[in-house]
Amino acid sequence: MATKFMSMRNLRFLLHEVFGLASLTRHPYYQQYDRKMLDMVLQAASELAERLLWPCFQEMDRNPPELADDTVKVHPVVKTMLKEFGSGGWIATTVPETLDGQQLPHLVSDTCQFIFCAANYSASAYPGLTDGAARLIENFGNKALYDAYVPKMRSGQWQGTMALTEPEAGSSLSDITTMAEPTDKGYYKIRGQKVFISAGDHDAVENVVHLMLAKIAGAPPGVKGISLFVVPKRRITEEGALVQNDVVTSGIFHKLGYRGCPITQLSIGDKDNCRGYLVGKPHHGLMYMFQMMNEARIGVGMGATAVATAAYYASLEYAKTRKQGRKVSEKNPGQPQIPIIEHADVKRMLLFQRAVVEGSLSLLLQCSQYADLQKIGNDHEKEKYALLLDLLTPVAKTYPSEMGILSISQGLQIFGGSGFCDDYPLEQYYRDARIHPIHEGTTGIHGIDLLGRKVLMQNGKAFQLFLAEVRAAVEEAGKFPGLEPYARELSEGIEKLVQVTSHLVRISQHKGPEHFLADATLYLDLIGIISVAWQWLLQAIAIEKALEKQLPAVEETFYRGKLHTFRYFFGYELPKIEGLVKRLSNNDGLTVEMDEALFRD
Amino acid sequence: MATKFMSMRNLRFLLHEVFGLASLTRHPYYQQYDRKMLDMVLQAASELAERLLWPCFQEMDRNPPELADDTVKVHPVVKTMLKEFGSGGWIATTVPETLDGQQLPHLVSDTCQFIFCAANYSASAYPGLTDGAARLIENFGNKALYDAYVPKMRSGQWQGTMALTEPEAGSSLSDITTMAEPTDKGYYKIRGQKVFISAGDHDAVENVVHLMLAKIAGAPPGVKGISLFVVPKRRITEEGALVQNDVVTSGIFHKLGYRGCPITQLSIGDKDNCRGYLVGKPHHGLMYMFQMMNEARIGVGMGATAVATAAYYASLEYAKTRKQGRKVSEKNPGQPQIPIIEHADVKRMLLFQRAVVEGSLSLLLQCSQYADLQKIGNDHEKEKYALLLDLLTPVAKTYPSEMGILSISQGLQIFGGSGFCDDYPLEQYYRDARIHPIHEGTTGIHGIDLLGRKVLMQNGKAFQLFLAEVRAAVEEAGKFPGLEPYARELSEGIEKLVQVTSHLVRISQHKGPEHFLADATLYLDLIGIISVAWQWLLQAIAIEKALEKQLPAVEETFYRGKLHTFRYFFGYELPKIEGLVKRLSNNDGLTVEMDEALFRD
Repeated sequence: MATKFMSMRNLRFLLHEVFGLASLTRHPYYQQYDRKMLDMVLQAASELAERLLWPCFQEMDRNPPELADDTVKVHPVVKTMLKEFGSGGWIATTVPETLDGQQLPHLVSDTCQFIFCAANYSASAYPGLTDGAARLIENFGNKALYDAYVPKMRSGQWQGTMALTEPEAGSSLSDITTMAEPTDKGYYKIRGQKVFISAGDHDAVENVVHLMLAKIAGAPPGVKGISLFVVPKRRITEEGALVQNDVVTSGIFHKLGYRGCPITQLSIGDKDNCRGYLVGKPHHGLMYMFQMMNEARIGVGMGATAVATAAYYASLEYAKTRKQGRKVSEKNPGQPQIPIIEHADVKRMLLFQRAVVEGSLSLLLQCSQYADLQKIGNDHEKEKYALLLDLLTPVAKTYPSEMGILSISQGLQIFGGSGFCDDYPLEQYYRDARIHPIHEGTTGIHGIDLLGRKVLMQNGKAFQLFLAEVRAAVEEAGKFPGLEPYARELSEGIEKLVQVTSHLVRISQHKGPEHFLADATLYLDLIGIISVAWQWLLQAIAIEKALEKQLPAVEETFYRGKLHTFRYFFGYELPKIEGLVKRLSNNDGLTVEMDEALFRD
Repeated sequence: MATKFMSMRNLRFLLHEVFGLASLTRHPYYQQYDRKMLDMVLQAASELAERLLWPCFQEMDRNPPELADDTVKVHPVVKTMLKEFGSGGWIATTVPETLDGQQLPHLVSDTCQFIFCAANYSASAYPGLTDGAARLIENFGNKALYDAYVPKMRSGQWQGTMALTEPEAGSSLSDITTMAEPTDKGYYKIRGQKVFISAGDHDAVENVVHLMLAKIAGAPPGVKGISLFVVPKRRITEEGALVQNDVVTSGIFHKLGYRGCPITQLSIGDKDNCRGYLVGKPHHGLMYMFQMMNEARIGVGMGATAVATAAYYASLEYAKTRKQGRKVSEKNPGQPQIPIIEHADVKRMLLFQRAVVEGSLSLLLQCSQYADLQKIGNDHEKEKYALLLDLLTPVAKTYPSEMGILSISQGLQIFGGSGFCDDYPLEQYYRDARIHPIHEGTTGIHGIDLLGRKVLMQNGKAFQLFLAEVRAAVEEAGKFPGLEPYARELSEGIEKLVQVTSHLVRISQHKGPEHFLADATLYLDLIGIISVAWQWLLQAIAIEKALEKQLPAVEETFYRGKLHTFRYFFGYELPKIEGLVKRLSNNDGLTVEMDEALFRD
């Protein structure tokens, strides 16, 4: 087991020096906090993660949930954790104080989530899902629903879930078939099947509250006929007792990773005795759910970054202590072996890991900052930051997920044969991380979302706002002589992105949506690299500012290490856009025109 | 479980239409065969794989070897398999008939190995390792050693291994500490520790024969002091009985994948009673072992390609049957869902898988062809093909290993959430394949081998031969109007490779080996893409020739599908060299100059 899973120093750097967290506290909504208090929150999260989550990281993987006697048994720490998270307010970090929440900035709340995920991704999922589910009821449910469910969820007594996917409706949510039949008693009768429901049932809580999508009988076809329901595992009787609500766990999935959290298959209403409670208005379910899904997507990006961060620190520790070989310039085998961190290729792999995880984290906290600015801004600002968040959501979900896997794979490689064995944690990180490009919308879905919807929406307004943000960073960086060449590189990258985008829009006009979106995933890759380069440039500006002052040696080392990692990103990662731009500038429709029959051989 | 793990049609295409297998039979050494007989060998291998290996592919993973009571218990099929492989001559495919072997061309033998690996990678390792170990004794051992060990190995009764790695000597073989103390009785006393020994002990055979590296007391330091020994688990007494030889399995590793084959830790000579038998001359051990290692490296490339091929067919089958969503141009949710293979992004992923696996396989069979031509050629040809093989070995090991992982990951992605679950085979392929960039030399080691040794050796003679081979393909392809633009693309790629190589050699001269080799892994990536593009161009030439004739519809579909995949490689994969060339044209020494202290934060 490694001794470190994340860097508090780096978190402070990002929050305070890059994203000016303390400045939020000048706003009335956050005025009860000051920098010191916010740092204490982070410190508390870190201690909680280290004490409770980190020690059982491997154990939860080795002893995955089991379904026996209609009960999903999970690791005993889950119960302890949910209780502590509930009583400590960790399932209500961004909830307003008027609703007994912590009213913390998203920057802080999301950073806490990052810490929990880095310590133990599976464990972090339980409270994270509950938080999101509770917020849906808060925002769209009526007072009766709120009173009945939310306090128990926020206190960690009940689990919350998102119950969307069905056997025949995964990426295509419009095809869900779970039905809701109205009654005259204020509830609906629900009947259907759900699959891949994370934390969908377990014995660490007395109840599970599903925020479930279903169609009311007679609803319009497609996504416009989807409604949102609260469907508890145990419903509350008029006397306040809990009774079974005909939601049966018919199976749990045996998974590659992320094994500490049960993913369940649910049979709903098989005995015609499942009651669901409508949230908000009929047929508005998907719109409501998108609020939770957008947050969850950012959350997946954060989880992916966190797992890759923990992997980075494990690799770093190993590279410092494992001795093997000599410098390539050293020909004398009598010389002692050196720690592998001294080999250039190992440093390259470590820099890759670090550039990916610290760049991803910056992008995610950029989203958190936008969420804060949206919350406290005037109408104009609200719109601006909402648009930026909309555009960046698929990017902030996908880049960390896809690149996180590659960075963990490089980390595993640093361990050599030991990386392939379960004596070291890398193989688990490698398994855990593979879920991220899949859940909350696959990478392919996000590519289409980005190019087909977000880039074009409101005549490209969000895209223009994004370009303006990046150009502003380029301009500021240009004022630092040491950053000027990098600023120019990114500026050229942005121009290439603009050209590629125009080219694709022309394809859309001349050849239609199939051709337009055929390489949407590669477009998402492209914008991902550019976004993270932008974030590294923002970090470099903060570094240059810090280095203008006299610093203690340990601090100077911190900044110089980050600056080197920034250079790595621009030297090794940004050039990858060249191949993508070349491909995306094509219009051969190669995949569209590949007839399915041609796959036969 | 999928129904298909490889394509016999594609194998026939590569062997006959690209590499002219039948022409080998004009040479006296292979004259006992004709095309029909060679095809029958392949058919027999395929049937054996399907009957014996494929059905227990998942079972061997779910029930990995266990060490109990000093015995490594493996799946019962291993015993059956080794017996059948032995009696069928499958552990002696390239052995001369004079030594009771099959005397098959490498093209056929390696293709059989590909088939076995695709059906069940773990299972294929047992006979594969025995074959390599036996050949070492054949080539370098004396008659007594040969008679005592080889027939039992070739018949599948005894297991062979390569015992190189030690706890403190993995990538750095010069640091092995296993000692061999001479005696006056014709054997050495061996004492040491070995780790990560594949098939290093198991209960499906009565004996295990380790081809082990050790240092004779007083040997020179480094690799020049390494000798090769036969160290059996049970040694043969003068009466012909088998007795324990003080080789104890002190542990087995619990691994991410490749779980059907035990990877063992061995304690040798703890009771001062282990006898080893010198192979060849003292201190020549590493040179001998390199013969086996070079074959084993090509074998790893083949295994990686095979696993990725099986994954491709599983993904293809799923994509054809799984229905989800509608065309992006179809706005009516009332229309039925379509098989996901009709989505452009899924076709892109399938084409990526196919382009990688069929391109990799071609590169590996190119190596097999060189091995055959080396064997039967005159002195000039022997040297030429030996040099080409030397140069291509790190490429043929690494490209399939690294890209195989990515292609399997895309295959898993096609399955969505199901890909993450063990109801489908993709998660196992994903785990199994992760070993390939590690064993038989990590990717980093091969980068240094390629750039630091192979490209420069004999004043770049091998590199020039390689360039000539690619340019010859470019020239021939240029004669086909449909291929001309692709030939030009590759020609430009080759020129870029030449420029980058010159640039790196200048760095070597001005800045020394550390800077020269810092990005050797990226150089290996670059030459890998170019090599596979070359192979796809060779395939395209064969396709164009085939399409000049009138063909039955099913045959035309085969060629058109391959042609489309060729275009995919040039449209999507070859452009990736742009970013690599940009990076490799730099000389900032970024990783070399990253002080280790700067990783602190």
